[in-house]
Amino acid sequence: MTTESQSLCTRSMQAPSSHHRRAWCPSFKLREVASMYCTMVAIFFIILVAALQGTAPSENHFPYKVPLDPEGILELSWNISYTEEVICFQLLIKELKYGVIFGMSDRGEFDNADLVVLWSDGKNSYFGDAWTDAKGQIHLDSQQDYQLLKAQKTFGGLLLLFKRPISTHDPKDYLIEDDTVHLVYGFLDEPFPSLEAINTSAIQKGLQRVQLLKPNISKPTLPPDLEDMEITAPDIIIPNQETTYWCYIKELPDHFSRHHIVMYEPIITKGNEALVHHMEVFQCAAEIEKVPHFNGTCDSKMKPEKLNHCRHVLAAWALGAKPFYYPEEAGLPFGGPGSSKYLRLEVHYHNPLELKGVHDSSGLRLYYTSMLRPFDAGIMELGLVYTPVMAIPPKETDFILTGYCTDKCTKLALPQSGIHIFASQLHTHLTGRKVITVLAREGRVTEIVNRDNHYSPHFQEIRKLKKIVTVLPGDVLITSCTYNTEDRKLATVGGFSITEEMCVNYIHYYPQTQLELCKSAVDPGYLQKYFHLINSFNNEDNGNYSNSSVKEQFASVSWNSFSRDVLKSLYDFAPISMHCNKSSAIRFPGEWERQPLPKIKMGLKEVTPQCQTIPGLSPASPALVNIDGKKG
Amino acid sequence: MTTESQSLCTRSMQAPSSHHRRAWCPSFKLREVASMYCTMVAIFFIILVAALQGTAPSENHFPYKVPLDPEGILELSWNISYTEEVICFQLLIKELKYGVIFGMSDRGEFDNADLVVLWSDGKNSYFGDAWTDAKGQIHLDSQQDYQLLKAQKTFGGLLLLFKRPISTHDPKDYLIEDDTVHLVYGFLDEPFPSLEAINTSAIQKGLQRVQLLKPNISKPTLPPDLEDMEITAPDIIIPNQETTYWCYIKELPDHFSRHHIVMYEPIITKGNEALVHHMEVFQCAAEIEKVPHFNGTCDSKMKPEKLNHCRHVLAAWALGAKPFYYPEEAGLPFGGPGSSKYLRLEVHYHNPLELKGVHDSSGLRLYYTSMLRPFDAGIMELGLVYTPVMAIPPKETDFILTGYCTDKCTKLALPQSGIHIFASQLHTHLTGRKVITVLAREGRVTEIVNRDNHYSPHFQEIRKLKKIVTVLPGDVLITSCTYNTEDRKLATVGGFSITEEMCVNYIHYYPQTQLELCKSAVDPGYLQKYFHLINSFNNEDNGNYSNSSVKEQFASVSWNSFSRDVLKSLYDFAPISMHCNKSSAIRFPGEWERQPLPKIKMGLKEVTPQCQTIPGLSPASPALVNIDGKKG
Repeated sequence: MTTESQSLCTRSMQAPSSHHRRAWCPSFKLREVASMYCTMVAIFFIILVAALQGTAPSENHFPYKVPLDPEGILELSWNISYTEEVICFQLLIKELKYGVIFGMSDRGEFDNADLVVLWSDGKNSYFGDAWTDAKGQIHLDSQQDYQLLKAQKTFGGLLLLFKRPISTHDPKDYLIEDDTVHLVYGFLDEPFPSLEAINTSAIQKGLQRVQLLKPNISKPTLPPDLEDMEITAPDIIIPNQETTYWCYIKELPDHFSRHHIVMYEPIITKGNEALVHHMEVFQCAAEIEKVPHFNGTCDSKMKPEKLNHCRHVLAAWALGAKPFYYPEEAGLPFGGPGSSKYLRLEVHYHNPLELKGVHDSSGLRLYYTSMLRPFDAGIMELGLVYTPVMAIPPKETDFILTGYCTDKCTKLALPQSGIHIFASQLHTHLTGRKVITVLAREGRVTEIVNRDNHYSPHFQEIRKLKKIVTVLPGDVLITSCTYNTEDRKLATVGGFSITEEMCVNYIHYYPQTQLELCKSAVDPGYLQKYFHLINSFNNEDNGNYSNSSVKEQFASVSWNSFSRDVLKSLYDFAPISMHCNKSSAIRFPGEWERQPLPKIKMGLKEVTPQCQTIPGLSPASPALVNIDGKKG
Repeated sequence: MTTESQSLCTRSMQAPSSHHRRAWCPSFKLREVASMYCTMVAIFFIILVAALQGTAPSENHFPYKVPLDPEGILELSWNISYTEEVICFQLLIKELKYGVIFGMSDRGEFDNADLVVLWSDGKNSYFGDAWTDAKGQIHLDSQQDYQLLKAQKTFGGLLLLFKRPISTHDPKDYLIEDDTVHLVYGFLDEPFPSLEAINTSAIQKGLQRVQLLKPNISKPTLPPDLEDMEITAPDIIIPNQETTYWCYIKELPDHFSRHHIVMYEPIITKGNEALVHHMEVFQCAAEIEKVPHFNGTCDSKMKPEKLNHCRHVLAAWALGAKPFYYPEEAGLPFGGPGSSKYLRLEVHYHNPLELKGVHDSSGLRLYYTSMLRPFDAGIMELGLVYTPVMAIPPKETDFILTGYCTDKCTKLALPQSGIHIFASQLHTHLTGRKVITVLAREGRVTEIVNRDNHYSPHFQEIRKLKKIVTVLPGDVLITSCTYNTEDRKLATVGGFSITEEMCVNYIHYYPQTQLELCKSAVDPGYLQKYFHLINSFNNEDNGNYSNSSVKEQFASVSWNSFSRDVLKSLYDFAPISMHCNKSSAIRFPGEWERQPLPKIKMGLKEVTPQCQTIPGLSPASPALVNIDGKKG
């Protein structure tokens, strides 16, 4: 984010700001007055008429941009000022009828949402900070934290410029954190006499996921010999179905020597911005000598089996993400001996309107250098081993599974000065809802490595950490995933299939170590004890499950509060099998079975903003908006 | 409480009050000023010199009184104004050296306590609102909520009159609720240069339990033919040991007809106010034709076994409790056919100084009428059956056991118009720390019947409810007790012994019904499944516990997080055995074994006061106290 962009948002804010504060937010003085002259409060509320003159902010004032709807009618740009604790939005409405709704909610639903609404009663247009209750009914917010700075008709559509504090202290507002934010939008196709008259269930609406609060990290200097390589889909036609994962194999040039990837960025075919959801470049396993070329959907029956060995992430991009820069002191090695020359591009197309015949050549552009940086960057997998012994009972709203990277493993595998984590990519399959990795030192949690309380399996991106986390030998890394299996009838076991589950945090760190994988799973013997006791408790012990797979055993459990609670207790108690591995197959030497669960105290206090709402005030008025070119 | 007492506390408050508020509590205006002129804040703090003139408040201004220490050197009186939300204390210090400490804490400890301190530096005396941190270090509170109204030397000692709001919104202050409050006190035997210099670990100190916030219920009119009967110890000598439970059998006159007890009050031998801790009068079971006379300690080997059948509570008093009045429409029947003529008085003497040769004739005075009131009052036992199947693992800080009175039982046993609970006595043995009974209707908790979050087994009294609770047929009553077994090595099972546990709420209600007991326990068959599975899980299944008692089975469990968690899960899941009984032996007709656990949603929201502290202010100054007759 440039300082220019901040100052624009700040400049246009200043005059209205002080005015606004007096008008909308009762100051303490007003509160005193209010308590004495309650009935006089109303006259303090004035209608803010937004100034509609001035030039449109140029696009580069807003470093971040996403289309909201699949047709790209709504386009959101934003910037953040961490010093002023303000986030500034620019919403481009390419086709305006009677208004739009934009906002945020816990997981993209339209109830309990924090909204701004631009609406017309057929005569005038209004802008207001609003919220929906548990039934989706819209109400004007008594504390107007979204402030309209500009509403301007341009050639491209109506530009709405508005800002809000990052933290508003208003319980009706969404608390923007640095994890995934579910943005919601809706189109108003008819006039409404009032905000309350809008029926949110009847309008065209949708959601879009982004990380709004990107970390404020300055761009590292790039090496002078920078070269780039495009890994893009070869002019394919996007299938006319909602979800497509496209797979394409690309080969590195012959005799391509060892290089460091120092940056990469997305290439998105013009017009397809709303269709390309996320993209990843994987490197195939070095052991696979010849990977067949392939260009097709990843679930195709034609897909060669060998492509399943192309899982080593080189680069990942998701909607709203900016170019990814490695820290100046490190780069991701590729090429040269011991490195596969085969790369797999995977593009997730999200085509809910099932558009036909759309050509696409999107992909990623890798920037690399032969001037190797001081440190090789590495990627390490934390969390749970892909095994069915870790399972989630059905009908759970928030069941937690936890994987450990134990002190024994970090003691053995990490250098004395530790490793430095600078980025993280969280990963689960379909039922994942939250993921967190914490660092524990000397028995106490001391740091959050990465956390997403609004995690969605449909939105996975490599995220730079706000602050580099150093892991020393003897530290413990604990990764917990929260799952929702309300719609499942059987237990969901761990595994590779999309209907099975994973709990993984790919941490990006330097200097590279031999430790590729530091994950755990419950000891399988203890799980057998669980099956035995739960079946005998439920009087369903047929005594013959020695031939059954763990998945089948889980499928035959009668789920009730007891079998669920005891499974939880087992996972909180039973010893673990540690995978402290050099590669997915080779463990570090040592005893890794039946290891004790790390005993960790929660030493970290949750910092929740303590805010007080001001009760008993009448709802504030919305702002009157003068849009001359409003369509009817 | 008389209105006179309120007005006294109010009168002496008024002038200082507004003054005080401006001086000590920064108002919103001050907060604004503070933010602008931070450095000027200090000058706003002024030293409040308490006016020492005026007459001492007469004793009856303070309806409640307790001695704090065993010698009665400190005597606390208090009154409450619910309209002004203020509690007013009068502390009589019979022998003052260099000061006293008085306050409240969670369970009577001297760390994390909310205190007022009167101390002398050898020259001047000061009074201040203070608190101790987790290490017991005293600090002056930045928000001075205890306000000194008067400090006066009288013939009886120094009288300190001070007040505080019931709710101070200061996190350093104790939140006074309507349950047990652990008062703490200490004596300062030397001068201290400052409050911070007081070493709380070195001073003589102690605790006293009271219910501070008595409900504000007006006294019912008493019948014209009121008679009274004293059930008192016959001039006994209190044993010179810390704890004595004294038992004394008293016989009703021959041909004593049916009467209604409408009130009772304590009779305490003058001078023994600090020794008599609590007293109860029980009626023996009608089935026991002849109960031998007895006068001795309840644990005496000489005590006749038949006294164990004298457990039907007629009256109960505990330290600080006022006379107990039945509601005008109801009385507790005793006498007449079907009612035992034997009463047992039990007095708990608390004699920590092990004083010798103290004579005592304390007891209770029952007031009764032959003009029977419209309704017989009844006492019903809620909670857990006295059975070892309900057990608490060792080393637990807050293990919860829950007993149910199911809809099936209330449907069968309660009249159509329901019963009305007007008082409640909570009961556990030594490890009980909290007790709560809630009422659930149509699957949702709708009301708290009685709750004590600071329950102590050493302080059990019948408490009038602030508001009568009506229980209708089909309602569910849920009683939960929280236990602390940190100092135990084996599981604590349910039972009659003082080292075993109980979870009981004796509710006092009218009209009397046949239902004497509505309690539950886990189904014993399911508990056997638990033992089986936990022993086989821990590989300790010797396969031969058919001869063992449940207590022995619990004693042989290997306690760890798994066996503990699974026991919790069992209690939350397994069907229950219901005791829906006419008397302790006779059940209502119906199937009461293997009943499903009631499915209840928590429909009640906890109302916790949301307060904001004002950060960044310097500590307020203590008040200078002018005590002319201060001793050295």
